Amino acid sequence: MKEIYLDNSATTKVYTEAAETAFKVMTEIYGNPSSLHMKGVEAEKVLEEARTLVAGAIGANPEGLYFTSGGTEANNLAVIGGALAKKRRGNKVVVSAYEHDSVIKSAKQLEAMGFSVTWLMPDENGIITPLSVFEAVDEKTVLVSVMLVNNEIGAINPIKEICAAAKRKNPEVLFHTDAVQGFCKVPFKAEKSGVDMVTVTAHKIGGPKGTGALWIKKGARVLPNHFGGEQEKQLRPGTQAMPLIAAFGKAVEIETASMSTRKEKMSMLEKYLKESIKNIDGIVLNSKDNAIPNIVNISALGIRSEIMLHFLENRGIYVSSGSACALGAKSHVLAAMGYDSARIDSAIRISFGRETEKEDIDELVAALSDAISTLCR
Amino acid sequence: MKEIYLDNSATTKVYTEAAETAFKVMTEIYGNPSSLHMKGVEAEKVLEEARTLVAGAIGANPEGLYFTSGGTEANNLAVIGGALAKKRRGNKVVVSAYEHDSVIKSAKQLEAMGFSVTWLMPDENGIITPLSVFEAVDEKTVLVSVMLVNNEIGAINPIKEICAAAKRKNPEVLFHTDAVQGFCKVPFKAEKSGVDMVTVTAHKIGGPKGTGALWIKKGARVLPNHFGGEQEKQLRPGTQAMPLIAAFGKAVEIETASMSTRKEKMSMLEKYLKESIKNIDGIVLNSKDNAIPNIVNISALGIRSEIMLHFLENRGIYVSSGSACALGAKSHVLAAMGYDSARIDSAIRISFGRETEKEDIDELVAALSDAISTLCR
Repeated sequence: MKEIYLDNSATTKVYTEAAETAFKVMTEIYGNPSSLHMKGVEAEKVLEEARTLVAGAIGANPEGLYFTSGGTEANNLAVIGGALAKKRRGNKVVVSAYEHDSVIKSAKQLEAMGFSVTWLMPDENGIITPLSVFEAVDEKTVLVSVMLVNNEIGAINPIKEICAAAKRKNPEVLFHTDAVQGFCKVPFKAEKSGVDMVTVTAHKIGGPKGTGALWIKKGARVLPNHFGGEQEKQLRPGTQAMPLIAAFGKAVEIETASMSTRKEKMSMLEKYLKESIKNIDGIVLNSKDNAIPNIVNISALGIRSEIMLHFLENRGIYVSSGSACALGAKSHVLAAMGYDSARIDSAIRISFGRETEKEDIDELVAALSDAISTLCR
Repeated sequence: MKEIYLDNSATTKVYTEAAETAFKVMTEIYGNPSSLHMKGVEAEKVLEEARTLVAGAIGANPEGLYFTSGGTEANNLAVIGGALAKKRRGNKVVVSAYEHDSVIKSAKQLEAMGFSVTWLMPDENGIITPLSVFEAVDEKTVLVSVMLVNNEIGAINPIKEICAAAKRKNPEVLFHTDAVQGFCKVPFKAEKSGVDMVTVTAHKIGGPKGTGALWIKKGARVLPNHFGGEQEKQLRPGTQAMPLIAAFGKAVEIETASMSTRKEKMSMLEKYLKESIKNIDGIVLNSKDNAIPNIVNISALGIRSEIMLHFLENRGIYVSSGSACALGAKSHVLAAMGYDSARIDSAIRISFGRETEKEDIDELVAALSDAISTLCR
């Protein structure tokens, strides 16, 4: 049976060239970048090349980029480390209610430490509006965190405007954006957007699982969460995940070069899918028109997500019911969107990748149709 | 020029089979282990196989093994997370003074949080004695951390006896050992030794940089340091570094099978090196007789470590002046051993690997000889 992988927002297949880069680093350029001899220097060069590539893809200086073990760690570092560094200035943080779990749980950690959290709801288009941020921020707010692209419904937030609104209300506020789902997909320039911190990760863009990065604007202070050696200027000690980081750089290089062609293809696939499901009774669209084209979230009303997932899986089609990290828990994203239980319980997220073709959509649509006629009897 | 890599305690070349495993995971078994469909299940199987292999190598149950981004993160989690989980029982921790920076700095973090730290000095053989631990622990002590093998001088600590001494004085104490430098080199069984937590890492045993693990005994409680999804039973959220973890498992498999033959070879090399340097005037041995055979720490009195490192490097021989993580800072390990500045400033660590041969030792010894006659004029 042919495998149709439509869960690219959960994770992606690694580019062969990126995997080859990792292989070479493991078997040839295997030095420790902290070692003072040539084998170390050689590894350090690979490390810094990757740093330049990743930072370049978000329009940022490489000196501000710190490699982490992935998006979760970067989000933890930004939200907790950022707020704690500013705690003498205030004890409030403002976070959108449909962030990834790693931001939500970090904010809850801050709550446990005595901070108060204002949770922002998306508007009817799934967007966090600059106005809502402006209203939520006050003189006690030390940190705002709003994601670039939502991971379940694909809503694209106007980060530059949101950040400007937050800073207009309180210029001292640290602004963080989790750009994991928008990275190499929507145009985003960290420095030009005015934000202080940006989270990216490798495994959503054809890089490997286990590495990500937090970019921090010059002058912004963040407290570390790991303690040890001198690596990553002591903000993130521990020997760097060299094979993954090198592969991350390679994936970024490929994705940056192919960004516009991929975008065109994703838009074509999105349009084709949306047209095709129009004719299926009982399917409603949860993603809004302004969403990123590679994520289409739908509900087949009356069929629970797990049942649909399993039905599709039996045909070799892989989708998800929400964020992989939440392991099938009720979606807090769709709840924040104001959708009712019937819709939330039957939601599935279809996410295209570079290898997705029109025929895959045909298979998916046929399967969805069959599911509805078989399971809704 | 032939490269003679004698810095295997800093990091190792990855086994080709392990690198191939990582490659396969990146390009074929690329699912997210948290995904509920087949691609996820397939990845989860790889994850759990690696967990079983790594836990097996320390004689521990796989359910207690949590993958981290490496030794530093595992040490942070054990020392800080372990002490914080017990803070209602007391505010004292006991740590050996020659631990890796990631344990030292974690203990200093605890100090900043109001804990008091008792630093244990090694005896004249470079060992932390059970008696010194017995004397240091009291009813307020919540955690003890003593490494299995010291990373600079190779001293092997009697962890089972040390742990027993700590628990005899206070049965409630959590005992942690950083086993990074002893893992797959000296026989060590986590469960039989009575310890509560063990740190291991992949990149010192022919696995890749960027993954490690903390094993936690059933019933021992540790507070997490990362917050997010459901991965690693929420103790260590974030998508697992699948390629590295799979390669870690493969490296452990190879190293476990070759442990006794490697040990024999290392002992032969150690003996050969020690015999050879006996005839060179001005070289003193910093490692003690009871040290692990793959680490030989010496001082060429009167030649600063960096100068010697550079001299050897020019002949294609790579050694280190201490821990790579400390980037050439004065060795706190040798200071804890009571060595004087002259000895500390000229120390170099030679660490053998599976590819080291007698001829490499010949080259090293010739180079050391030349260095002394050239640089000490």
